[in-house]
Amino acid sequence: MMNSPDERSLPQKISEDIISLILEENLQPGDKLPNETVLCEKLNAGRSSVREAMKLLASRNIVTIRQGSGTYIAKTPGMVEDPLGFTFISNKKKLVHDLLEVRFLLEPSIASMAAANADEEDIKKIIKLCDEIEDLLKNNEDHIQKDIEFHTAIALSSKNVVVPRLVPVINSSIPLFVEMTRNTLHKETIESHREIAEAIAAHDTLRAQDAMYLHLVYNRKTIQKSI
Amino acid sequence: MMNSPDERSLPQKISEDIISLILEENLQPGDKLPNETVLCEKLNAGRSSVREAMKLLASRNIVTIRQGSGTYIAKTPGMVEDPLGFTFISNKKKLVHDLLEVRFLLEPSIASMAAANADEEDIKKIIKLCDEIEDLLKNNEDHIQKDIEFHTAIALSSKNVVVPRLVPVINSSIPLFVEMTRNTLHKETIESHREIAEAIAAHDTLRAQDAMYLHLVYNRKTIQKSI
Repeated sequence: MMNSPDERSLPQKISEDIISLILEENLQPGDKLPNETVLCEKLNAGRSSVREAMKLLASRNIVTIRQGSGTYIAKTPGMVEDPLGFTFISNKKKLVHDLLEVRFLLEPSIASMAAANADEEDIKKIIKLCDEIEDLLKNNEDHIQKDIEFHTAIALSSKNVVVPRLVPVINSSIPLFVEMTRNTLHKETIESHREIAEAIAAHDTLRAQDAMYLHLVYNRKTIQKSI
Repeated sequence: MMNSPDERSLPQKISEDIISLILEENLQPGDKLPNETVLCEKLNAGRSSVREAMKLLASRNIVTIRQGSGTYIAKTPGMVEDPLGFTFISNKKKLVHDLLEVRFLLEPSIASMAAANADEEDIKKIIKLCDEIEDLLKNNEDHIQKDIEFHTAIALSSKNVVVPRLVPVINSSIPLFVEMTRNTLHKETIESHREIAEAIAAHDTLRAQDAMYLHLVYNRKTIQKSI
């Protein structure tokens, strides 16, 4: 997928050395990296190559460069926007259909895991997002961002470390869904979100799984009508 | 996840203009991009900014720069190595456990979809990979790359456009699995791969689903022993 080692430019090689350094020193999101002078010495590299390497790492969202302050480990290091490259799948109808198929495989079980593992903090957040989405929908305002946050909060409650990195990617389809269903799902969205949130709050794994399944069924029905 | 628009550098902005251009002109993997002079004119930008922008796109694996030949759309545009940033999850035991949990959610259903949709070409490829892995295992040679290819070939046979982008990511855990199970799974790997391949070749969806489930169960048992 990537260039083979011998095709790599000097800044690419140095960027990989910096990744090794981050891992060895166990730097965490938000931690500051050593300054340029220190890095040049440690990596035995020139200033301009290190600067180029940092730009590459910033474009992969591994570090965040703050002008005048320094370079920091990014919040979710290594996760770029659209990491699976859905932008470049040109048949959007097929993409929406297939993303929904994958959501069916993942999200009911994730809701069940969330019901089993959510703590008080998680539950508060899920209920709050559910309230906010309901208000937005009733006022005919844009709820897409909050909708993705709702599904991400459920993913985080599963306590599986992979799931919160996967769900926002799969849920990148929500804007496409909303566009295709032309916002006709207001009532069903409110009710099925509420049922999912309450089931998780009650730690009822089966009810959470069924509620999420039903939520996806509503979506699929409406999408099939619109295609 | 990404920098907000006002924090973006000029090359970043230009790189996004180039992405828009790629999408508008519906350029496909392997297609050549217009040369620098044409791009500078189209995007109303300077040569060095366009060059910087191209380096950013190359680091995100959207384009491939071939010295002396030109710039081309990458094979799987927008998919970088380790797109979900697993490198930066420091607890590897938890990562292996949670990746396996996600494989349980996805792969049995994907095997079933493959059994439903695989064409003659797909089946030939799956059987061939199955044979190759068997030979490697019997000779105690490294089978990891072929193992990932086997699961990717099944993902491609599902004919879902999202699944082949997801499965290699989830299967990035295979090297970790093999390390943790210390290669004790030879016989089970051979038998369960064979059963999966034959079920797909017979277009038997339930048998394929069960065979994949069993394959994952073997893996989980061995991993639990080793943790």
